[in-house]
Amino acid sequence: MCALKRRPFTATPLKLRKPVPSDIDIAQESDLKPISQIAEELGLLPEEVEFYGPYKAKVKLEVLNRLQDAPSGKYIDVTAITPTPLGEGKTTTTVGLSQALGALLNYRVMTCIRQPSQGPTFGIKGGAAGGGYSQVIPMEEFNLHLTGDIHAITAANNLAAAAIDARILHESDATDEQLFNRLIPAGKDGKRHFSRLMLERVRKLGYATDNPDDLTPEQRRKLCRLDIDPDTITWRRVIDTSDRFLRGITVGQGEEEKGLERKTGFDITVASEIMAVLALTTSLKDMRDRFGRIVVALSKGGEAITCSDLGVSGAMTVLMRDAIKPNLMQTLEGTPVFVHAGPFANIAHGNSSILADQIALKLADYVVTESGFGADMGMEKFFDIKCRASGLIPNVVVLVATVRALKMHGGGPKVVAGKPLDKAYTEENLDLLRAGIPNMLHHIKLARKYGIPVVVAVNRFATDTPAELELVRKAAVEEGGAFAAAVCEHWEKGGEGALELAKAVVDAANQPSKFQFLYPLDKSIKEKIETIAREVYGADGVDYSPEAEERIAEYTRLGFDKLPVCMAKTHLSLSHDPNLKGVPKGFRIPVRDIRASVGAGFVYPILGKMSTMPGLPTRPAFYDVDIDLETGRVVGLF
Amino acid sequence: MCALKRRPFTATPLKLRKPVPSDIDIAQESDLKPISQIAEELGLLPEEVEFYGPYKAKVKLEVLNRLQDAPSGKYIDVTAITPTPLGEGKTTTTVGLSQALGALLNYRVMTCIRQPSQGPTFGIKGGAAGGGYSQVIPMEEFNLHLTGDIHAITAANNLAAAAIDARILHESDATDEQLFNRLIPAGKDGKRHFSRLMLERVRKLGYATDNPDDLTPEQRRKLCRLDIDPDTITWRRVIDTSDRFLRGITVGQGEEEKGLERKTGFDITVASEIMAVLALTTSLKDMRDRFGRIVVALSKGGEAITCSDLGVSGAMTVLMRDAIKPNLMQTLEGTPVFVHAGPFANIAHGNSSILADQIALKLADYVVTESGFGADMGMEKFFDIKCRASGLIPNVVVLVATVRALKMHGGGPKVVAGKPLDKAYTEENLDLLRAGIPNMLHHIKLARKYGIPVVVAVNRFATDTPAELELVRKAAVEEGGAFAAAVCEHWEKGGEGALELAKAVVDAANQPSKFQFLYPLDKSIKEKIETIAREVYGADGVDYSPEAEERIAEYTRLGFDKLPVCMAKTHLSLSHDPNLKGVPKGFRIPVRDIRASVGAGFVYPILGKMSTMPGLPTRPAFYDVDIDLETGRVVGLF
Repeated sequence: MCALKRRPFTATPLKLRKPVPSDIDIAQESDLKPISQIAEELGLLPEEVEFYGPYKAKVKLEVLNRLQDAPSGKYIDVTAITPTPLGEGKTTTTVGLSQALGALLNYRVMTCIRQPSQGPTFGIKGGAAGGGYSQVIPMEEFNLHLTGDIHAITAANNLAAAAIDARILHESDATDEQLFNRLIPAGKDGKRHFSRLMLERVRKLGYATDNPDDLTPEQRRKLCRLDIDPDTITWRRVIDTSDRFLRGITVGQGEEEKGLERKTGFDITVASEIMAVLALTTSLKDMRDRFGRIVVALSKGGEAITCSDLGVSGAMTVLMRDAIKPNLMQTLEGTPVFVHAGPFANIAHGNSSILADQIALKLADYVVTESGFGADMGMEKFFDIKCRASGLIPNVVVLVATVRALKMHGGGPKVVAGKPLDKAYTEENLDLLRAGIPNMLHHIKLARKYGIPVVVAVNRFATDTPAELELVRKAAVEEGGAFAAAVCEHWEKGGEGALELAKAVVDAANQPSKFQFLYPLDKSIKEKIETIAREVYGADGVDYSPEAEERIAEYTRLGFDKLPVCMAKTHLSLSHDPNLKGVPKGFRIPVRDIRASVGAGFVYPILGKMSTMPGLPTRPAFYDVDIDLETGRVVGLF
Repeated sequence: MCALKRRPFTATPLKLRKPVPSDIDIAQESDLKPISQIAEELGLLPEEVEFYGPYKAKVKLEVLNRLQDAPSGKYIDVTAITPTPLGEGKTTTTVGLSQALGALLNYRVMTCIRQPSQGPTFGIKGGAAGGGYSQVIPMEEFNLHLTGDIHAITAANNLAAAAIDARILHESDATDEQLFNRLIPAGKDGKRHFSRLMLERVRKLGYATDNPDDLTPEQRRKLCRLDIDPDTITWRRVIDTSDRFLRGITVGQGEEEKGLERKTGFDITVASEIMAVLALTTSLKDMRDRFGRIVVALSKGGEAITCSDLGVSGAMTVLMRDAIKPNLMQTLEGTPVFVHAGPFANIAHGNSSILADQIALKLADYVVTESGFGADMGMEKFFDIKCRASGLIPNVVVLVATVRALKMHGGGPKVVAGKPLDKAYTEENLDLLRAGIPNMLHHIKLARKYGIPVVVAVNRFATDTPAELELVRKAAVEEGGAFAAAVCEHWEKGGEGALELAKAVVDAANQPSKFQFLYPLDKSIKEKIETIAREVYGADGVDYSPEAEERIAEYTRLGFDKLPVCMAKTHLSLSHDPNLKGVPKGFRIPVRDIRASVGAGFVYPILGKMSTMPGLPTRPAFYDVDIDLETGRVVGLF
């Protein structure tokens, strides 16, 4: 299958204990291979790897040149049914399946997952490295700064934000000639020169000269005065902390900025356009171009103002030049993992990076990648946005289902994070379960619509009964048309618990792929939104707010209507209303607003109320997090 | 001198060119030793080093245990006269002196400098890695993310900020019993347990029990309701971007936070208390304790509310557990450098870290550390705050002076960044120079007041004439009482250009040190402020705003009056007014406000207008920064 010369792979033996200890205890008592060994086992050359401490590394993009003629492995996407707020173990399944494929079945496997945000890590959710005996380690490093990619995004995003407001301020009190002199001052040789960045705008405006002094006063004005309309600024600041008090703010209230104050807000960094660019870019040059295309506002004359116009896209690329390289880590059983790009498939596209997947496909027989939340969210975006940008063809969809979530869809009591589960979930209840199964069937049908075989992973919890598990498994295959369905116990047993799943995935991967997109790009924005609403969510139609109508007209005028659509929708329902469980019927999707991420390459409708900044609960997860001063170890990270 | 077994040190030969190329060109065409070699030459053990790519590493604090009985090297502080806005080459001198000591005189030398902020790097100032043939390399990594320490500070600072506002929100709509149930819920065993962090507050309140259910309703209320008075919040958010529109903001204007909005702002990260803690801490435990002591606000009852009370100091420590380790890099001539903690000695204390200096002193014969801006700013804080916290005794002060700055102090025309220099500065003018020399004499006298011998480094610029340089040199020794003075050309020639300086420093370091602090800690806050104002700045006295008076009374009541004082003052004058050059007389210092950095361990008077967030100019430095897509190299970083 794979032409690369294999180095011997050494599986790390698990030290299984019962009852299963806490995630951090398992992670800290596990054996770690040096990351240099992981890299060597993958066939990476020493000059292709940059170490960040003993257990993390970045892999340089040059590896893609070396391996351009190598065959590609099979491409497996892990998604889920509509989850409860607790999550159904998608990352855990992604890791467990990989451990089974690599450590037990001896395939070359790579896992591609996303770096978690510090917001939920210290807020509600805790860590995201998987769980039990299916984890990525060291889980502290995975859950904290990793190699700083998210921080680089924050820096690049906020440099552009500062550039916008500073530019408005400086334009407000300068004449055209002052602006020209300040932006293009004479150099040491006494002559004016366009900087590289300035030259981009010169060319965009269609001026052929390289000599600033050739410009007419009108050309100087057009070049130097961006004339940003403050009311059109869509670029927000970001931070990777769950800080709800930054959702809505007024900036510019300092003494020296008075008169220019305006309302804006912060989003969580992982939901930013820069994160989307990182996930969707295919090279350093492509990233540089995408940053240049990012539209931050309109001019008073209605022209799109980009990061290139602000002269900041080069600096943004420089800030992101390390972040573009995927991060190499390992699972508890010693298989290799790429951690790259970010989560939040509800308000972003929430997929790991194309570059990580591309490199992985050249290094491994099987690449297991995860897309966020349910198949209506991350998987739809995986197919219609990510695979469209990459040109990669997936082979198998693994759909994670749990008895707990299906019972919720069948009408079970509300599931709330931090509160004990109702006994409906911990005792056998086949009727409740049966009533919820249509949600799973909807997701199977959805994945099959793209022409990809589906393997259902029934992620077993301790209280699930054999009859319940069998009911789910059978419905998946017989009613849903899944290629296969397997009950999994990887949380308790590691790769061994996902062995049946892994074998089914290998079989499914040998099926012919008939992959197709849901919609062609040349449809209008509204047609694309309506296709997703009807065919994915099962809605009767779509209603647009006046703001959304206005923006759609504007984006169509600006030529952004040929981009794919990235829906910002709750992950807790197939509909826009998190309270509607199962397979809701008879609803219409409200589009409250729509934004354009021109650099990332999609438009971004916001369905109902979608917060782009989480909050902290009364008792945030940070209450448990500390350093044990005796051992120097992190405690309380879940 | 040093008991450590020396590994052979290999100097990196410079490839001197004329005219001197740009900083980034010199840096990119220089030879780099692998950082593993630098570590080995220093005598570090492999297990004491964590690599971040091939040219950066973190050094673990465990090395201090291993070397606790090793003798300490000589401790040299580099400071300057009152600078022009262009800076007088202090970092360049720090690096050049080190290159001379290490690569030419064959001493074991370590350089300890501060990590620059991305704000000025992309704003006005450009990079801060030194310049010409005296630089720290790779300069791109030095000037950009390095190993993420500043990003970790941003994360830790803003987690505390989010915790404050979220806590106020959650307390506002919950009963005491609800708060108790949410903060101390029953665990899986059905019993309530105090988390480690919660237990700190339990003990602070004097409750002896470990069982939450033992608490009376009144005790529960006191424990769980912090009752923060929003008007007393002194903790601001931070960001490492020069973003002037964040200086004054209103937060909490989101729909779900309505009614709790309040005015606040962002500071630049490097000016934050967490950065000060990083610089002043002496161990992981000490850092944990300091974070716990940080006072963020007062309760409505007037009690100090700390990060420990918020339950966030453990998570802050976890976020900073890598940042506490100094970063190892190298100079152009291959001598080792620690880069640790941050700049801004005007609004912060602006010194590199105690831990870097402590480790360096155990590894080297000579440790050259830099303190920010003039001797009235960074050096005063180096002595009275940093050396007080560390117990380390400095041996020599190197005072950097330039003909340019002295001419400015003598009444020369205004020096403005980005504008060509007046010819008063580029042609010989001995009268102007002579008139400015008292500023240098004041700084020499100031350093000598602490009992430390002073060596003046006259940093030569191309247009300085021999007569001008000799005038400065002679005045320093004969009028100022400097131990020695040497003309330096390290910018043009590397270490060779600082050879005479290095020899003078070695001689001075053999003088007996009679180090003493300027003031004892048991004086009142006002007495301390007034001692610095009179003896360091030459002021006639101090005036306090009503707000400052109120805060001083409050801080005295709370017991913060025994801390040293960290003045926030312009670095462009010995006075608080940046327009007063030379040695101003007949002025009084206005204290506009005063803040307490209890975790860092100082109070923090703000003299006149001091912005804690820089702004971007019309043409920010980022306009030149880009990636060369052919080579992958960074261009335009100065």
